[in-house]
Amino acid sequence: MSSKLYNGHTLIFRNAPRIIATGTIAGPKECAGIVGEFVDRQLSDDMFGEDTFEKAECKMLSTAIDTAIENAGLKRSDIDVLFSGDLLNQIISASFAARDFDIPFLGVYSACSTMSESMLLAAAMVNAGYAKRAVAATGSHFASAERQYRYPLEQGTTRPPQSQWTVTGAGGCVIADKGEGISIVGGTIGKVVDFGVTDVNNMGAAMAPACADTLMRHFRDTGTSPDDYDMIVSGDLGALGSRILKDLTWEKGYDISRNHVDCGEIVYKVIEDEFQGGSGAGCSAVVFNSYIMAKLISGQFSRVLFAATGALLSTVSSGQGESIPCISHAVELRR
Amino acid sequence: MSSKLYNGHTLIFRNAPRIIATGTIAGPKECAGIVGEFVDRQLSDDMFGEDTFEKAECKMLSTAIDTAIENAGLKRSDIDVLFSGDLLNQIISASFAARDFDIPFLGVYSACSTMSESMLLAAAMVNAGYAKRAVAATGSHFASAERQYRYPLEQGTTRPPQSQWTVTGAGGCVIADKGEGISIVGGTIGKVVDFGVTDVNNMGAAMAPACADTLMRHFRDTGTSPDDYDMIVSGDLGALGSRILKDLTWEKGYDISRNHVDCGEIVYKVIEDEFQGGSGAGCSAVVFNSYIMAKLISGQFSRVLFAATGALLSTVSSGQGESIPCISHAVELRR
Repeated sequence: MSSKLYNGHTLIFRNAPRIIATGTIAGPKECAGIVGEFVDRQLSDDMFGEDTFEKAECKMLSTAIDTAIENAGLKRSDIDVLFSGDLLNQIISASFAARDFDIPFLGVYSACSTMSESMLLAAAMVNAGYAKRAVAATGSHFASAERQYRYPLEQGTTRPPQSQWTVTGAGGCVIADKGEGISIVGGTIGKVVDFGVTDVNNMGAAMAPACADTLMRHFRDTGTSPDDYDMIVSGDLGALGSRILKDLTWEKGYDISRNHVDCGEIVYKVIEDEFQGGSGAGCSAVVFNSYIMAKLISGQFSRVLFAATGALLSTVSSGQGESIPCISHAVELRR
Repeated sequence: MSSKLYNGHTLIFRNAPRIIATGTIAGPKECAGIVGEFVDRQLSDDMFGEDTFEKAECKMLSTAIDTAIENAGLKRSDIDVLFSGDLLNQIISASFAARDFDIPFLGVYSACSTMSESMLLAAAMVNAGYAKRAVAATGSHFASAERQYRYPLEQGTTRPPQSQWTVTGAGGCVIADKGEGISIVGGTIGKVVDFGVTDVNNMGAAMAPACADTLMRHFRDTGTSPDDYDMIVSGDLGALGSRILKDLTWEKGYDISRNHVDCGEIVYKVIEDEFQGGSGAGCSAVVFNSYIMAKLISGQFSRVLFAATGALLSTVSSGQGESIPCISHAVELRR
């Protein structure tokens, strides 16, 4: 193995920065599903005591960050840098959360790929020795996302069958230079990929090519194959997007069908009839930091590739006839 | 000097990642001012041949990035990572620009502090050895910002005397691990500071406390005083905000009155009567990457502290009665 710190566009973290704790919170609909028994806090009311959806979203994100710090046995002042972003215009959930923390803050945006972008940057900072402890976190809220990206709920618009349900929840993790934890051994920076999808209700199909691109670059850069991983976790492609991802990678000689799981596909119970599954920055944030991390900590998984996926559109770009550029950042985790 | 890679919240870049080239473009109103003779490209029409303001903004950003790469004598494929963001919802200018580049892309958001956040992260990546060459870039457009944050121009709304004019322009730089250039020797990550300003037309007053906080932390962390710098450059505080910055730092024992300059305050000719000066992510991006860099390259300045400033509000947060959280990231440059 060379001593290079990167190969292709994959960063190699030789000092194995590790996730020493996570914090997660999710809404009632989400907690009825697979993450319910793993999250730190289950909300019975998705307003979380606030008077607007946006304030509830911000409070969830703050809570997830604080919970991760507490679960690590640390105080806010022990954290050197916070990487966070969210889906709201001007990432106000992250900015307003950061206002309460007095922690150096680097705002990021990559839509629903924010969890893995934040983790990649936080791990890079810790691995390089710029920080001892960094937090990566994000979240989303169904109601704030609907009214910003689509229609206000009060309008009662019918949702098409290819649509996904934005997860109400938030998750974060503390990444440190030492301590017990799950190591982040590398990360592949995503490229923007646009396959010309223009249907804003069909995000899974739009995002799958970006995810395929990142996964295959990660395999190539690290000299691995899908079988080397116990689980390859995509962000929020949903049921249709996951099928497209498997097809696209299969065409290029990578069979991920055995060990691929999509956070969006598994987050809700099938009986809930939310079509393609969950989406939103909170989807992979909650599923990864609760369910997937529990599998890593218990030893059920020992090597996981986590590639959250983001659609980089806005209502303005869609209104101007643009297709949907997408991105997926990946991090590789080892027990 | 210790061998630590950071002190307080200031990163120390011992390998001196350097700016080997910049690329800048600006609109006609901007080019009538101080940056006119320094930018790579002067626009005679701020639509830049596009049919919407947002597409013009994106094209300016793409042009600035491409120009920086060309000025460095490089090709797009030589760039390992692009850090970019902008003011538009979901940073569509940066995302859509990145779509054309096939370069790994890390989206950031810190409003008008995006130039220094991007530079800080790019320099950190290059300094740590994760990348040989990174690009940091951002931009803004007066007309797209007005209709997103305030009122569409067609409405003909009167602007209040404390308002600033969003710069139409974009700027970027190539940061490399070797070659001739201006070194980035350190950077201080901003914290979110909110002094309770709620007037969305008075950004300078809102941002000044965040800038003061970052500058003073940089002085403390590096054991320097204002007099050690040839120039301390803030982002877009404008005339009023600059006065507040000088007062706030003076109160704490730092006199920056001799060598402080604000990109927003100098970007337009006083005769143009745009009240407090310029603002927008493009303001510090254009002024820094053209005028300030020219002073560094010519040897007129040999040590500069550059702290772009950002107001992290959205129309939703303002509409919900929130005050304006602000941030300022700083990078230190040496000839």
